[in-house]
Amino acid sequence: MSLLVAGTTALDSIKTPYAENPRLLGGSASHAAVAASFFSQAHLVGAVGEDFPKKYINLYRKHGLCLEGLDHRAGQTFHWSGEYEVNMNNRRTLDTVLGVIEDYSPTLPSNYTKLPYVLLANIAPDVQGRVLDQMKRSKFVVADTMDLWLNIARPAVLKLLKRIDCLVLNDSEASQLVEEDNVVAAIPRIHKLGPKYVIVKKGEHGSILSGPNGLFIAPAYPLKKVVDPTGAGDSFVGGMMGYLASQRGSVDKNLREGIICGSVTASFCCENFGLKKTTKIKKADISKRVRELTRMASW
Amino acid sequence: MSLLVAGTTALDSIKTPYAENPRLLGGSASHAAVAASFFSQAHLVGAVGEDFPKKYINLYRKHGLCLEGLDHRAGQTFHWSGEYEVNMNNRRTLDTVLGVIEDYSPTLPSNYTKLPYVLLANIAPDVQGRVLDQMKRSKFVVADTMDLWLNIARPAVLKLLKRIDCLVLNDSEASQLVEEDNVVAAIPRIHKLGPKYVIVKKGEHGSILSGPNGLFIAPAYPLKKVVDPTGAGDSFVGGMMGYLASQRGSVDKNLREGIICGSVTASFCCENFGLKKTTKIKKADISKRVRELTRMASW
Repeated sequence: MSLLVAGTTALDSIKTPYAENPRLLGGSASHAAVAASFFSQAHLVGAVGEDFPKKYINLYRKHGLCLEGLDHRAGQTFHWSGEYEVNMNNRRTLDTVLGVIEDYSPTLPSNYTKLPYVLLANIAPDVQGRVLDQMKRSKFVVADTMDLWLNIARPAVLKLLKRIDCLVLNDSEASQLVEEDNVVAAIPRIHKLGPKYVIVKKGEHGSILSGPNGLFIAPAYPLKKVVDPTGAGDSFVGGMMGYLASQRGSVDKNLREGIICGSVTASFCCENFGLKKTTKIKKADISKRVRELTRMASW
Repeated sequence: MSLLVAGTTALDSIKTPYAENPRLLGGSASHAAVAASFFSQAHLVGAVGEDFPKKYINLYRKHGLCLEGLDHRAGQTFHWSGEYEVNMNNRRTLDTVLGVIEDYSPTLPSNYTKLPYVLLANIAPDVQGRVLDQMKRSKFVVADTMDLWLNIARPAVLKLLKRIDCLVLNDSEASQLVEEDNVVAAIPRIHKLGPKYVIVKKGEHGSILSGPNGLFIAPAYPLKKVVDPTGAGDSFVGGMMGYLASQRGSVDKNLREGIICGSVTASFCCENFGLKKTTKIKKADISKRVRELTRMASW
């Protein structure tokens, strides 16, 4: 089966203590759709401007993405620039140009509206809601969000939470959403806001899934060096959803394995800037790390 | 089989944002030996002063500890007082009275010197070395350490590292020891300093074991509320060593299961001040959480 991936399609300029990389292919939907593509065909929903390089379109094509839902609009592509500190857990935004996503309201191609797996990658919650309005047969809807939307669009986030099956967010965002420092205590409060499944991302420390089968404590693939963590969370959820869409049987049955696949896909994302590494790996590289991680986490 | 546990036997006064608890039973050896006692008989090595309450001796006895190696000396018991902030990851020492451990140099009862499992819980590295000097048939020697000793007694720590099988330390101490922020990259450098096994504790995020069988990424038992994390690291290594001493076969074969037992024992420690909770649980409580954690970490 195939899946829909909606979110930002962006140009990212990323500074770390070691290097500077201008105008990389970035955005939540780019990372998530490329990650998903190792497992299933991803149908992209996003908007780019006139400055969006042809080579990035070719990169999407190389990964078999369906681009019918990619809107080419007059104006600039969404551009984020940010800087990481030495430990890579602290980043600050240097500049944001919304460009063509400022007044973006996606209209889906009709074949998209029947896709069973729906990933609302990080973008304004109203845009996520607008995508959902058009879906007709969704089997599993996952939304990602970020601190920005909790700060400036909380009512829209809360409205969205009632319409999705699964919310993915990081540990500090989970604490912020329900005002509870302890993540394990925050999770039941997030369920009360709507989603049947909650996944809390903890970066290098893995993630926690909460659902009808209780908690799943998932490890991250250990990396000796993190070059650029931008997009790792998007790759995680993209890999997970790509895996789910590729499997038969219930989501409940496949979700743990999906999280491990997402976690491993995200590990590659961290090993170079933007999508540089993820667009060079093969499915076999992911499978190898999944086997390694399985050995590393068994007793 | 049984094991030796050497370290501090202390009185702890602990303040958190929620409560204040003066003169609790504390110290690395107290926490580790009580944790170990659920699996094996622990032989305690430590020193207490005239002010050490009889009720704490009774508590040791209730847990079946062998107290022949507990030195009753003239003077005050080692006393630590500290304060935790809201998130429990930040603590500061308010006061330390070394008392009877200031010039402490343990002499072991002769039956202790043949114990196969040796846990050098956190105390000055020279004292840990002095205990090791007297051991005759040790099968597996584990040492714990802390930032204090890396700051004020680094040469003694480095000397000790060449004599032990396994070093246990937390993530920030691992980074400090080899000046490497990335814990996964720090581990091979720690092996080069001596120990065949390295265990990095990450608190609520679990731990990482590195040894001849590669890495083991171990989860922590998830807690909705942490009341007082003092002694959790000691409980972790104590539970692990108690388990190892209770099992047949090689350390390599049993170590992963041992880490899970230690991790679960430590979870109880965090649920009340000092040893209040750990001294009230039964082996069956630990076994139940081990089963739960096994379910929560499988895919």
